[in-house]
Amino acid sequence: VTSEFDLIRRHFARPAAASGRARLGIGDDAALLRAPAGAELAVTTDTLLEGTHFLRGTHPGRLGHKALAVNLSDLAAMGAVPRYALLALTLPKADTRWLTAFSEGFFRLARRYGVELVGGDTTRGPLSITVTAIGEVPAGKALRRDGAQAGDDIWVTGTLGDAAMGLAALQGHIRLTGRARQHCVECLEMPQPRVVVGRALRGVASAAIDLSDGLLADLGHLCERSKLTAEVWLDCVPRPDEISACRTTAVARHMLLAGGDDYELAFTAPPRMRAKVERAGFGNGVMVTRVGTLKRGSARVRVYEGSTLVRMPRGGYDHFR
Amino acid sequence: VTSEFDLIRRHFARPAAASGRARLGIGDDAALLRAPAGAELAVTTDTLLEGTHFLRGTHPGRLGHKALAVNLSDLAAMGAVPRYALLALTLPKADTRWLTAFSEGFFRLARRYGVELVGGDTTRGPLSITVTAIGEVPAGKALRRDGAQAGDDIWVTGTLGDAAMGLAALQGHIRLTGRARQHCVECLEMPQPRVVVGRALRGVASAAIDLSDGLLADLGHLCERSKLTAEVWLDCVPRPDEISACRTTAVARHMLLAGGDDYELAFTAPPRMRAKVERAGFGNGVMVTRVGTLKRGSARVRVYEGSTLVRMPRGGYDHFR
Repeated sequence: VTSEFDLIRRHFARPAAASGRARLGIGDDAALLRAPAGAELAVTTDTLLEGTHFLRGTHPGRLGHKALAVNLSDLAAMGAVPRYALLALTLPKADTRWLTAFSEGFFRLARRYGVELVGGDTTRGPLSITVTAIGEVPAGKALRRDGAQAGDDIWVTGTLGDAAMGLAALQGHIRLTGRARQHCVECLEMPQPRVVVGRALRGVASAAIDLSDGLLADLGHLCERSKLTAEVWLDCVPRPDEISACRTTAVARHMLLAGGDDYELAFTAPPRMRAKVERAGFGNGVMVTRVGTLKRGSARVRVYEGSTLVRMPRGGYDHFR
Repeated sequence: VTSEFDLIRRHFARPAAASGRARLGIGDDAALLRAPAGAELAVTTDTLLEGTHFLRGTHPGRLGHKALAVNLSDLAAMGAVPRYALLALTLPKADTRWLTAFSEGFFRLARRYGVELVGGDTTRGPLSITVTAIGEVPAGKALRRDGAQAGDDIWVTGTLGDAAMGLAALQGHIRLTGRARQHCVECLEMPQPRVVVGRALRGVASAAIDLSDGLLADLGHLCERSKLTAEVWLDCVPRPDEISACRTTAVARHMLLAGGDDYELAFTAPPRMRAKVERAGFGNGVMVTRVGTLKRGSARVRVYEGSTLVRMPRGGYDHFR
C-alpha cells in the first residue's frame, strides 16, 4: 500500500522553481511564506467535485489545470498576482497514471504563472479537489466587488457561454461537432484565468468579479456589494459563433447570461477609463467588451434587448447541472 | 432551493471579531490579509472525510471543532499563532440544523484562538471538510521538522493513545464504559490543539511535529527531515489510565505509539533547555514528558523497553482505519 506521504512526495513535492519565494514548502506541518513590504495577500479556496463540477471521465490533466485555474481566476478578479497554492486531493485510489496526468496539468498552469505548490493533503474517497491559492497585491490596490460607482461602465473579458455550450454538448442537450465542439469543450475543461488582464486593471477598474455562475448571477453579487443596479445590453454581450447551435433564443440566452463556468472577468470602470481598459485587455491579447452601465438603485441586474426589458427566469442557471 | 451563496452567508459570514485583522473577509473573490512586519505566514490544509477521518453520525458540532483543530495543531507544531481560516465544505444536503451545530463548533474554537474565517466554498456531495489555516510567526523563529540535533531530548505533550482508544471503543474493538469511554471519545472528537505550548516553545525547541498518525510514524518524519535516529523509551511514553482496557500488550502498544489522532506535539530540544521546556508546558497547563533522545544515524525510530529493542509491526497504525 502506497502511503499518503509517499503519494504526495512522488507527484507533488517538486523541487522549488528557480524563483521559489516560499521560505519553506511541502514537507513540514505548514508552509512558511513572506509577503513583500507593502503587499497584501489575496487568499481563496474552491472545490471541484466529480459529478457536480466536472463529468466522470474528464481527462485528469484537464482536471489538474481546471482545479488551479478556477482559483487563479478568483485572484485575477482581485488584481492579485498568484504566488502559492495548496492542494487537498481526495482520490478513490492511488492510480499512478491518473496522478501523473493530473499533476502535469496542474504544474503546467502553475509554471505559466510562477505558482509554487507549498502544501496539501491526500485522502482516499470520492474524487474531489480543493485548491487554496494565494496571491500578492499592493496594499489598497485590490479590485473588490464593492468599489463600483453609479455611471461606471460594465465590461467583460472574452466571450460568454462557450463553456456552458461545451457542457451541454457533452451531455447531449445541444448538437455541436468538429472544431466548434472542440472549442466549447476546451473552454469548459481548460479555462484560461485572466491573470494578466486582472493585474493590468489595477488602478483602472473600480470593481471586478470572476464569472463562475454566469454573468447575471455574478454581476448580481457585484451589484449587491456596490449597492447599485446593473443595466446590461443583451446585444452587446460578446458571444461565440457557436451560439448559433442553440435551437431557441431562450437556450442561447441561458448559455450567454447564466450558463456559468466562463471564468472570464466582469468589471466596472468610469467612462474616462475606456482607453485604459482597452489597453489592459487588447494590449494583453484579451478581448474586452462594454456590455452595460451602472445606475443608482437597489442591487439588481436588468437586461435590455434594445429598449425592451428582458425577463430572465430566476435560478435558470442550474438547468444543466 | 437554498443557493450556495445564501448558505455561506447565513452560517459563516459572521461579523468580523472586534480584533478583525483581515483587510477583507468573506464575500469577495478572495480575502485580503496583511502580515505584520517581520512576520512569516504559516499555511496548512487538511481534509476530514466521512468514513475515513470520522464515523458517520458524529455530532456536527464536534466535526466543526475537529476540522479546525487539526489545522491549528499543524500551526502549533510550527510555533505559529493562528489568525485566519478558509473552509471548503462538501455537504449531502443543506440541513440548517446540521449547519448551525457545525458552525457553532467551528466558531467556538475559532474564537478561543482569535481565528477569523475569511473565505470558503460550499458544494453538494459526500460529506467532506477541508480547512486551510493561516498563522503568523516571527521570521526565522518557526519550529521546523529539520532543526533537531544529535543529543537533543525528545518530548511529547499530553498523553498518547486516548483518541485511538476512543475510536476502538466506538467501533467495538475494545470495551470502555462510563467516564473512561467519555474521555477517550472526547479526545477523538474534540482534540485540543497545543497552540499556546507551540508558541511558548519558540526559541526553546529545536524541531517539532504534530502527532496525527501516531508517535512512530510522525517522529519518523521528523527524523527523516533532521537526518537522525530517534531512541524512544517505551516505559516513559505518557499514557492514559484507560490504557488498561486494552487486553493485550500489543494492542496497548499500538494505541500508544501508532493509534493516531493524538494531535499532541512531539518536539526536540537540547538537554540544557529542560527547565524551559517544562515551563512552556506545565506553565501553560499542559503536561510535557521526555520520552527519548536523538542519535546520529539514518532516519529511524527505535523503541526500547528497558534495554530491549521492541519490534513494531510496520504500517500497523492503519489497523483500525
